[in-house]
This record gives sequence, structure tokens and C-alpha cells, in this order.
Amino acid sequence: MTAYALLLEYDGRGFVGWQTQPNGLSVQQVLEEAASKLAGGAPVAAAIAGRTDAGVHAIGQVAMITLERDLPPQRLREALNFHMKPHAVVVQEARLAPEGWHPRFDAKRRRYRYIILNRSARPALEMGHVWHMPHPLEAGAMAEGARFLLGRHDFTSFRASSCQAKSPLRTLDRLDVRRDGYHVIIEAEARSFLHHQVRNMVGTLKLVGEGAWAPARMAEALAACDRAAAGPTAPPDGLTFISVDYEPPVF
Amino acid sequence: MTAYALLLEYDGRGFVGWQTQPNGLSVQQVLEEAASKLAGGAPVAAAIAGRTDAGVHAIGQVAMITLERDLPPQRLREALNFHMKPHAVVVQEARLAPEGWHPRFDAKRRRYRYIILNRSARPALEMGHVWHMPHPLEAGAMAEGARFLLGRHDFTSFRASSCQAKSPLRTLDRLDVRRDGYHVIIEAEARSFLHHQVRNMVGTLKLVGEGAWAPARMAEALAACDRAAAGPTAPPDGLTFISVDYEPPVF
Repeated sequence: MTAYALLLEYDGRGFVGWQTQPNGLSVQQVLEEAASKLAGGAPVAAAIAGRTDAGVHAIGQVAMITLERDLPPQRLREALNFHMKPHAVVVQEARLAPEGWHPRFDAKRRRYRYIILNRSARPALEMGHVWHMPHPLEAGAMAEGARFLLGRHDFTSFRASSCQAKSPLRTLDRLDVRRDGYHVIIEAEARSFLHHQVRNMVGTLKLVGEGAWAPARMAEALAACDRAAAGPTAPPDGLTFISVDYEPPVF
Repeated sequence: MTAYALLLEYDGRGFVGWQTQPNGLSVQQVLEEAASKLAGGAPVAAAIAGRTDAGVHAIGQVAMITLERDLPPQRLREALNFHMKPHAVVVQEARLAPEGWHPRFDAKRRRYRYIILNRSARPALEMGHVWHMPHPLEAGAMAEGARFLLGRHDFTSFRASSCQAKSPLRTLDRLDVRRDGYHVIIEAEARSFLHHQVRNMVGTLKLVGEGAWAPARMAEALAACDRAAAGPTAPPDGLTFISVDYEPPVF
């Protein structure tokens, strides 16, 4: 048996998310079915660094599959990419997985990016890849509000009710907000995130950006440890899983 | 009669190009049909700064329409965007057109960007927005080759046989090539371009990038004044019309 680490890129539109579900096509299913073709039809199970919801994208997601066959990683990548056509999922790189390595449990740091298109006109070129907010957002105030969430906290207020993590404690290492033309870009970094944590933080920062909340209210929302104290969940479209770090690095 | 200048963004996928043709939906048709709804059903004709081919995108295209009605430009933009749904075309801004202004004939400078995805894996997130070249390209050599095309020349070697311009003389002010990770980005700037000129320059620079041509062969191809002396036409996917300048500025 040989374990491979895979660096994945996918467009979340058209998928029910990473995880296989009865109601549509998942990224996992596309990958596992392609891998199964290389295993003579035997089922292949894939593990992932960070599960993503329907509509969420990835440019540096990391997965692991295990095959009976010993294939050169480059050939594995090409074969998987061939079999995953025409779906919007590709293996950018494949490596032999380090001994005993797991993409989820060994992740030291994960990065997400969220893009808001902040202009009157709806998106044309970026449809499905941004959250459209027609009214002007104050990115400086959002950045100020974001700083209240940094560090180790109980993030219950920003956690989906469906979240299965044992503890709501997380350490948020980075939550930057900046404006680039009519884009407002939010970058988040942590060892791990709760379910919907990034989208709930973004949905709440949007309240700060439009002036409905003072920046310091982010601290109150956090301290409340109550989902109802924070803002709504931002849509998946603007969210991309950027990268994940391992020690030693895998890619 | 009131003339309006419109700043347009569109995704070229799914369109037969700017210009209306019998074989499918054009950007022009989507815009003109939306404008016609504001004119009580009367036909409205749109003029454009730079016609684009099927599959070519735009983020800063400029168009003009003329209406009998006198609408505040912001309301015109909103109404057009409403009526152009769900097509991937939007009006980012609308202004009253300067007296006697024409988006095509008064353009002082046009900018195009071409993006090559230079990695083994086919695109997932950027499908339809890049030209995929799996083999490594030498962007430095491409930049060197590009410099031979700068200035005023007879660009017959880089002109589509269908080009309707009276003269093949054009002044190329900028043709930059740079690498950004696995993207090779080509930016071109001129008062005007011949039909397929950018795509033909890119298709020829690709020969330089892969080492099939020495950079100086770009000069020979140009001097030949023969379409057969240059490389093939790059696909439309990677091409975006970025912006157009007027004096005084319109947007």
C-alpha cells in the first residue's frame, strides 16, 4: 500500500462540497472515483485537510489517498487529472505521503481568503467567486473590528449549530481586512477553524463595514458565546481554501 | 436624444463575441435588448471601444448608447443591469457622453491582458479564463522577444486574414511579459490593435517561451509582413480587454 499526498484545486460551484452526500456531486466523489479507476475498480477513500461546504473553492487543499499500486507521483497526478475531466477539480501536485502522515490531523496552519465585491454592479467575470455587496463598506473599520477576534477564544458565537468539533476554543492567528479597488479581501489563518467560522466572522464584519456595528461590538459578540450575538453567515461564493502547512512541509 | 457612456464588464464564455451574429448570443445583443426595454421597445444601437471575439473577456470595455429618454446615469446603469440578468454582462458605471464623443474613434489608448496558466494541471478555478500550457515557458525570453515588436510597424504578420482595417500599420507602446507563480502575464498597450493582433503576438511569443524560437526571431517574423511567418493564434480564453483611455477621461 502506498499513500500519496495531493495538492488540489477546485471550483466549488456545482459541488455539494468536499464531503460525499446523497443530494449531488461532491469533490470527494470525483476524486475517489478517479482513484478507483487506478485501483482496478476497488473503492479508494480520500482524507482531506479541511472539508469545504457547497460553493466554497480551493486553490491549495491537501488530500491523501492510498493505493495498492506503486505509481510514480507524477503519473498518478496525470492519471487522476485525466479521469476527473471534465469536472472543475485538479491535482496540481502529487507526492509520496510521509510515513504516518494525515492531512487533517497533522495540519499546523490553515489559510482562507474571502472576497467581497463592493460595487453597485453585480459580478460578471467573478460570478460565483465573490460576495456582492452593493453598498460601500468601510474596510478600515472592518480591519479594526477583526483585531478583537485575534488570539485564543471560545468562538461559539461564530460556530455553526451543526459544528461537530469537541471544543469551541480556537486560536485565530490572523484576520486581515484590506481594500483593493472594489474588492474587500479578508484573510484568515489558524491551526484549525470551527464549521462556518470564517463565513460567520465575515458576515459579522460586514455589519461593521456598513456602519451598523461599531468595531468594538465584535468583542461583545465574541464574549457572548452565543451564535445569536454575531451576524449572519456570509455566502460560500467568496470563500477559498488557500493553503495548509505541515512540519516538515509536504508541498 | 441623450448619449450615455457605459463602462462594461463581461465574461466572454457563452457569447459569440461583442458583435451580433446569426449563430448565437452576443454581448451587443444583450446590451441592446436591455436598452430597448428602456426605450419602449424601440431598437437601440450600441457602439463599442474595442470589438472582442467569442470567448474574450472585458473588465473595462466602453460602450455608448443613445436614448430618447433623459435618465439619470445611475438609474440607467441599474435598469440595464436588471434587464441584462442573468447574462454575464454588467454596466459598472454610466455617464452622460461628452458632446460628439465616440467610444471607438476617440479612443487614445487600449489595454489588453493575456494570462497563460503554465503548469501541468489543467485549470479548475480559472477554466475559460486562461490558456493552459503544461510545458515550462521561459518568461524572460518571451519578454526579450516582445521588445522587438515595440514601436510603429507594419503588423501584417500578426493580423487575421479577416481583419478589415485599412492599414496594417500600428504603434505598439507596451508588450510586457512577466511570470507570477504559475501564471505568465502578457500586457499590451496601443492606440489600436489589428484583428487578432494580441492573440497572434501571444501565440508567437509562446514559441519563444518554449525555446522553439530565439527571441530575435520575433523581429524576423515582423519584418516578413506575412502571416505565415508568425506563430499560431492563441485561444481567446486568456484574453481580457482591460481599459481604454479618452482625453479628457470619460470614466
